[in-house]
Amino acid sequence: MKTTLENKVKFFSSKAGSHFASKVTDELGVTLSSLTVKKFSCGEIYVKYDESIRGKHVFLFHTIRPEKVNDDFMELFLLCDAAKQSFAKNIHVVLPHFGYSRQDKIHDAREGISAKLMADLMVKSGASHMITLHLHSDQTQGFFDVPVDNVNTQKMFIEYFKEKNIDDFLIVSPDAGGAKYAKKFADQLGVDLAIMHKSRPAHNQAEVNEVVGDIKGKTCILVDDMVDTAGTICAAQKALIKHGANPDVYLCATHPIFSGPAIERLKNSGFKEIVISDSIPLQEELRNCTILSCAPLLAQIIKNIISERSVSELF
Amino acid sequence: MKTTLENKVKFFSSKAGSHFASKVTDELGVTLSSLTVKKFSCGEIYVKYDESIRGKHVFLFHTIRPEKVNDDFMELFLLCDAAKQSFAKNIHVVLPHFGYSRQDKIHDAREGISAKLMADLMVKSGASHMITLHLHSDQTQGFFDVPVDNVNTQKMFIEYFKEKNIDDFLIVSPDAGGAKYAKKFADQLGVDLAIMHKSRPAHNQAEVNEVVGDIKGKTCILVDDMVDTAGTICAAQKALIKHGANPDVYLCATHPIFSGPAIERLKNSGFKEIVISDSIPLQEELRNCTILSCAPLLAQIIKNIISERSVSELF
Amino acid sequence: MKTTLENKVKFFSSKAGSHFASKVTDELGVTLSSLTVKKFSCGEIYVKYDESIRGKHVFLFHTIRPEKVNDDFMELFLLCDAAKQSFAKNIHVVLPHFGYSRQDKIHDAREGISAKLMADLMVKSGASHMITLHLHSDQTQGFFDVPVDNVNTQKMFIEYFKEKNIDDFLIVSPDAGGAKYAKKFADQLGVDLAIMHKSRPAHNQAEVNEVVGDIKGKTCILVDDMVDTAGTICAAQKALIKHGANPDVYLCATHPIFSGPAIERLKNSGFKEIVISDSIPLQEELRNCTILSCAPLLAQIIKNIISERSVSELF
Amino acid sequence: MKTTLENKVKFFSSKAGSHFASKVTDELGVTLSSLTVKKFSCGEIYVKYDESIRGKHVFLFHTIRPEKVNDDFMELFLLCDAAKQSFAKNIHVVLPHFGYSRQDKIHDAREGISAKLMADLMVKSGASHMITLHLHSDQTQGFFDVPVDNVNTQKMFIEYFKEKNIDDFLIVSPDAGGAKYAKKFADQLGVDLAIMHKSRPAHNQAEVNEVVGDIKGKTCILVDDMVDTAGTICAAQKALIKHGANPDVYLCATHPIFSGPAIERLKNSGFKEIVISDSIPLQEELRNCTILSCAPLLAQIIKNIISERSVSELF
Amino acid sequence: MKTTLENKVKFFSSKAGSHFASKVTDELGVTLSSLTVKKFSCGEIYVKYDESIRGKHVFLFHTIRPEKVNDDFMELFLLCDAAKQSFAKNIHVVLPHFGYSRQDKIHDAREGISAKLMADLMVKSGASHMITLHLHSDQTQGFFDVPVDNVNTQKMFIEYFKEKNIDDFLIVSPDAGGAKYAKKFADQLGVDLAIMHKSRPAHNQAEVNEVVGDIKGKTCILVDDMVDTAGTICAAQKALIKHGANPDVYLCATHPIFSGPAIERLKNSGFKEIVISDSIPLQEELRNCTILSCAPLLAQIIKNIISERSVSELF
Amino acid sequence: MKTTLENKVKFFSSKAGSHFASKVTDELGVTLSSLTVKKFSCGEIYVKYDESIRGKHVFLFHTIRPEKVNDDFMELFLLCDAAKQSFAKNIHVVLPHFGYSRQDKIHDAREGISAKLMADLMVKSGASHMITLHLHSDQTQGFFDVPVDNVNTQKMFIEYFKEKNIDDFLIVSPDAGGAKYAKKFADQLGVDLAIMHKSRPAHNQAEVNEVVGDIKGKTCILVDDMVDTAGTICAAQKALIKHGANPDVYLCATHPIFSGPAIERLKNSGFKEIVISDSIPLQEELRNCTILSCAPLLAQIIKNIISERSVSELF
Repeated sequence: MKTTLENKVKFFSSKAGSHFASKVTDELGVTLSSLTVKKFSCGEIYVKYDESIRGKHVFLFHTIRPEKVNDDFMELFLLCDAAKQSFAKNIHVVLPHFGYSRQDKIHDAREGISAKLMADLMVKSGASHMITLHLHSDQTQGFFDVPVDNVNTQKMFIEYFKEKNIDDFLIVSPDAGGAKYAKKFADQLGVDLAIMHKSRPAHNQAEVNEVVGDIKGKTCILVDDMVDTAGTICAAQKALIKHGANPDVYLCATHPIFSGPAIERLKNSGFKEIVISDSIPLQEELRNCTILSCAPLLAQIIKNIISERSVSELF
Repeated sequence: MKTTLENKVKFFSSKAGSHFASKVTDELGVTLSSLTVKKFSCGEIYVKYDESIRGKHVFLFHTIRPEKVNDDFMELFLLCDAAKQSFAKNIHVVLPHFGYSRQDKIHDAREGISAKLMADLMVKSGASHMITLHLHSDQTQGFFDVPVDNVNTQKMFIEYFKEKNIDDFLIVSPDAGGAKYAKKFADQLGVDLAIMHKSRPAHNQAEVNEVVGDIKGKTCILVDDMVDTAGTICAAQKALIKHGANPDVYLCATHPIFSGPAIERLKNSGFKEIVISDSIPLQEELRNCTILSCAPLLAQIIKNIISERSVSELF
Repeated sequence: MKTTLENKVKFFSSKAGSHFASKVTDELGVTLSSLTVKKFSCGEIYVKYDESIRGKHVFLFHTIRPEKVNDDFMELFLLCDAAKQSFAKNIHVVLPHFGYSRQDKIHDAREGISAKLMADLMVKSGASHMITLHLHSDQTQGFFDVPVDNVNTQKMFIEYFKEKNIDDFLIVSPDAGGAKYAKKFADQLGVDLAIMHKSRPAHNQAEVNEVVGDIKGKTCILVDDMVDTAGTICAAQKALIKHGANPDVYLCATHPIFSGPAIERLKNSGFKEIVISDSIPLQEELRNCTILSCAPLLAQIIKNIISERSVSELF
Repeated sequence: MKTTLENKVKFFSSKAGSHFASKVTDELGVTLSSLTVKKFSCGEIYVKYDESIRGKHVFLFHTIRPEKVNDDFMELFLLCDAAKQSFAKNIHVVLPHFGYSRQDKIHDAREGISAKLMADLMVKSGASHMITLHLHSDQTQGFFDVPVDNVNTQKMFIEYFKEKNIDDFLIVSPDAGGAKYAKKFADQLGVDLAIMHKSRPAHNQAEVNEVVGDIKGKTCILVDDMVDTAGTICAAQKALIKHGANPDVYLCATHPIFSGPAIERLKNSGFKEIVISDSIPLQEELRNCTILSCAPLLAQIIKNIISERSVSELF
Repeated sequence: MKTTLENKVKFFSSKAGSHFASKVTDELGVTLSSLTVKKFSCGEIYVKYDESIRGKHVFLFHTIRPEKVNDDFMELFLLCDAAKQSFAKNIHVVLPHFGYSRQDKIHDAREGISAKLMADLMVKSGASHMITLHLHSDQTQGFFDVPVDNVNTQKMFIEYFKEKNIDDFLIVSPDAGGAKYAKKFADQLGVDLAIMHKSRPAHNQAEVNEVVGDIKGKTCILVDDMVDTAGTICAAQKALIKHGANPDVYLCATHPIFSGPAIERLKNSGFKEIVISDSIPLQEELRNCTILSCAPLLAQIIKNIISERSVSELF
Repeated sequence: MKTTLENKVKFFSSKAGSHFASKVTDELGVTLSSLTVKKFSCGEIYVKYDESIRGKHVFLFHTIRPEKVNDDFMELFLLCDAAKQSFAKNIHVVLPHFGYSRQDKIHDAREGISAKLMADLMVKSGASHMITLHLHSDQTQGFFDVPVDNVNTQKMFIEYFKEKNIDDFLIVSPDAGGAKYAKKFADQLGVDLAIMHKSRPAHNQAEVNEVVGDIKGKTCILVDDMVDTAGTICAAQKALIKHGANPDVYLCATHPIFSGPAIERLKNSGFKEIVISDSIPLQEELRNCTILSCAPLLAQIIKNIISERSVSELF
């Protein structure tokens, strides 16, 4: 495969994407080309491709990191523009974590639809194809005016849990919105499903976590697409135990945003195991999470794209 | 208000929209202008506005009817185009039922995203503003490159059920995907929530409907955005009773698609009451459903739009 | 040629196009790939490509059938969108009959230009190249923002009539609008031309068919681009005979729309021969028309397109 | 009306449009605002609006003059752009003669569709509405992505000929392509129709003008949309006389392009009368043509547009 | 004026724009409407208009602050999108400092044109009109597909210096690129011009600042559009003194970016006076600069825009 | 290289480009394909590619000639459109002189930005890549929505002057706006820089040319991007001599527009040598200028483009 790749395709990674980019290129047996990205003291980012990309398929590894969301998006826009100006044939953006993806609808009057806006701005900047990972909603794919390969991580997580052979467990969605995702998880593993939701027993009382479904004495795996401040998920864990679940609660989520108090909360939470992907680079303190890398999935997809074979058969 | 309306705004209705259009214009104290729509024997539709719309805000009442989905969409495209060619200032499409809305994501490889496509084609045809009713997913709003007022029917249904004073009831979602919608319903009514899902006890056995949540002896209200062939919903009703619910089961859904075997199934189902909106004109046989008209909601929104006041405060 | 085709190009046909698609692929020595198209009971169409088309040139055989015009257009939009979402490199739509092609201008105030609209919607859906057959007006080509190969059927018909060796015949246009097309026909065959038009002798009298040109005792070939309800053409035939033409009148038209009363009228008309193309699948009753297939023409064009040779030299 | 006009609307004329612009503004009782257009010695055109047009409806009177076609189009593009950059609310281009309008289809392989291109370039430059006069083909309206008011001159010419009370006359189309236009003319006047076409009696003989229809002893009015080099029309006139028509032949055409040998030919032709519009400024030598000004028609349309009344009722 | 403004126009300010927004609204006698902007702990920005803007002209006061460049641009994109989704009639972005404006051309291979990209992204997000202040290059105006009012600060600075009555002074451009701007400055003040440029006396020697023009004993005013790290400008000042200029050197620049070592450098520089605008909010330490507010200029322009009067007459 | 070229690429030249096109194709060892361009007597241009370009990379050699600016632009638009309609894969426009390039900003109220407009119109017509030569401002590159290779001529001129070994010379910019360009020139040659500007000693006195920088006794090379009417440049030359420069003044400019009185002025000027490029075909009278052909530069770039190698390394 190597000869073809070297002639037609070039791979670049931003700093944000470097933690998975090298794994992907190792799997593919290719090398990353060189890219200059610097930030001036005035805060403006400067980007430049260090090798000719004229007529090439450019694969750009990047991700949106928590706390650096806006810098990372702006860098991506600039990288796409520079590639377009430099006569790249196609710009394939590999973006495992897509920031602003939760603002995919208008929750309240006079908000925008930020996920749609980010999709529009990436395409306007020059992105001609997106490879994303477990988008917050499947509908987000429809926000792009270019084709999107949205990589599914569920199979990877399910295989992991199958091999663990946990006794008498079930899948739990931490809220009603995640019920559909949890349902697919439970079906694939052939186990039961429980769904949590918050309710307020009386008008001036605090919200409590209710559980629909029978969890008594069972081991629970809480599943979600992402964990942000970890408030909901830690409260869910406590509620499960309070409702009689086995105290060994697992947490499984694709995107470890872990912002604000998340790290403190998770450290104190007593989860049996936290299973996540490497869609976002992790801080040192949480390296004892179980990290399943998305790199093999991405490598396989890119291999099929380059050889113009079906991608769907991979999932 | 009348003088302003007559000068700047004109209202038209297709045949598909006529069952609610007159109710809306009655509420507004305005009259519908005349429109010619005919179908030639070769199947092509011909449309023509019978009055000048130059410089006017055109409000077009239409809906997508089951079985006539494609004709209705094509008629809408033609109506938008003719309005654009006739120098309308703006084309406000009032479309309570948006066909193809369930195909809002790629469920399987090499499908399209039909809801996004329909949004794109309406905008390309000339639609400059959409007024929709309870879209299948909130994200659909992001598929349009023009602003969308998506009217919420939940308040209307909740007020109806509050006035009924049903004893000891709860809200049931017929599947995991509808859990979030049902949750909001339950919260507003201050009652419990149950969620159903299908599972297959063993590899070569039929799927069964499972219920998560306690429904024993309770009156269930099954809620959903639409009822199509009514297969799922009738099976859900039977399963609820089998699991010990009060046999008086209510069904509440915005869009009465009722296609194929739906009418037969619903007639035989023994639902205590079926509560729906008039987003779609109903066939004679189902006139014993309880129909809550969306016309007052639409009228109120249009009134605010015309006077350029906030619409959000209405919900 | 085969090896190249199999690698880069895939051929698909809708049901509407199946009657000529297989003839074209036979000529090319290629096979049709598989496509799923189904209609749900609610009337929505579902489409899915059964094989990977990533990076491929997709040729899509389709046509717009009378009475199913709107379904056929919607299916085409959906097929284009699904191909675009599935990463097709190019979408070549082979569409021998282009519905709504007669609404190519504003005949009356506040109409739209439906042919332009259909062109816009096809392109918006993803069509990147059109292959059409004898468009109603040549200007229609300018409605598309993508290149169009409009296949000329005249040569095919002329060769057919040359071989027939009809004695003392001439070409007749059934109305003034078709005079230019008939003129080219007559020139190629080296025969005379007559032009019919309707006029109203006095204010409250019926319209009569007048003939300009000398048809006495001559065999007439009425030529047109399409026959729809066959009212005009059957009246024209009668008028020709009444004005002294040889009773053996031929009819030659590319598109056999034959809607409404057409079949009855044509059966009763007593045309000597009706010569048409297979741009539209014919109902059983009219299989005694002489059908000249457009498949060889389409096959030749596609062959040249695939090998990136000139198409114009074919006509 | 004046107060409204002065507040919201401004009228400008290029040099090319000045011969009819003042007539239009006189009819409307408004004044032309001032515009600077100059040509540098390097051939570049410079344009500047001399008064603020911020937020105004700008009506721009212009036409495309023969021999200056390219300069006139470029000036128009520049005028539209400058108006857009200067915050005009709308740019209404009044363009009685639309150059390149005959290249509205691909006559031969590897040509462009110049009329479509010009439409696209005007819209890209900023034109938001077109007012044209008797377009070469009605389909041209579909080339614009903005609405077009195409003013019909036929009624004006027909009224003129009705008042002349010519004895025993008929309408003649100089070629098959013009048959449809001539037919409408004849119908409105309630007279007969003849159609001319060129044919070649034998392979190496010159083309001759044939006439279909009975013109013996009759007065002929040759009608067409435009007269360019006048070759066809002068040959047609001679042929009519040769075929026995009354030697008093009239010529009626909207656009007096009169390029190359036209003036010489027409001087020598002996037409009884040449009736044209002032869509193009005429050279001194041809001032003995009968010129029916399009200004009253344009004024009426503009009046209706400004007051947002129907335009269609005018025709 | 007040009544009109309150009905049609609403003013909002981001935090970045607040330091000049209130001055502008005070001049206009209007009030700022309320806007919610917050940053989640994950770094995503959330925006929401607190009042209805349906059908309104929205003026948005914002600027791009050094070090917060990317956050400020992203916030602006989100603000524009939310306004568009909320049915604003027009979105007028008042942006005195336009970040990335120096990357307005490709200096080196495989860079992008960031200023063009930012212009494209603002327009894509919904901006329909820009009001900028002293753009780095005049050509930047051509990067926008919407009209731009680029406010000139030169008149403001010149009036300030005229009133100071400095003896025997001249205008100095710190580099060749600024010569044109400095020339206009000198002309308006009726004084001489000097131009500095760096050169390298020999291959391995440091660059030195050369001065073309006679500055001996004269008071120099160094003029530029912006001061970033202040390295060039401080070196220029030293070189001027070294070449014999009066040690009282003035610095006059529109945009006080003052990033990185700028503040330290300027403190140590010994400039007689630093005259800047408030296009960017200033840090405490540099409040002893002379700040000429751009608010009166912006207020005047907005007043003329709202009343649809000419803006150009203001400069 | 030849085999690849013949298969995928075709070269065409307009008449305007023919003087350099053949030099470029000679360097490349390829042949020009045939193109028909004619002008009808009505002034409309007709274009047609004489060979199939389906699927080909089309390189189009053209330039904008003074006095024929508008004809040349229109011809270019038509050529791009015809190529697009003829299924060219890409349209590479090689345009050494880009007319209207000086109108790249709004100098005065209510002008347009003509250079941006021309860029937009070329892209709209179908240009997918531009190769230009020494654009008037570098920012112009940002006006195009397609990539631009802007060829730098400075290296070519510098090498020429290096070889001449002129004694004690310096580089002079004729005005402040050209200072930056002249500075780069001086730096590359390692010589001094002087900058001229016009000033008015007193209110009712004529403007005089001032020189900043020491030119006493030195040989001056006046450098600029273009020479139009030659008024400024000839006055500059005289002023240099008057201020004590060596009377042997050189002129070096990329674009010899030489319009209006330019030829007369230059003949009378007494320049020691006038060094220009052949971006524009020269009239006979000025063939004693030193013409450095841009063909080798263009050939080299095209060679790299075709082989998809870096272009930047060439400069």
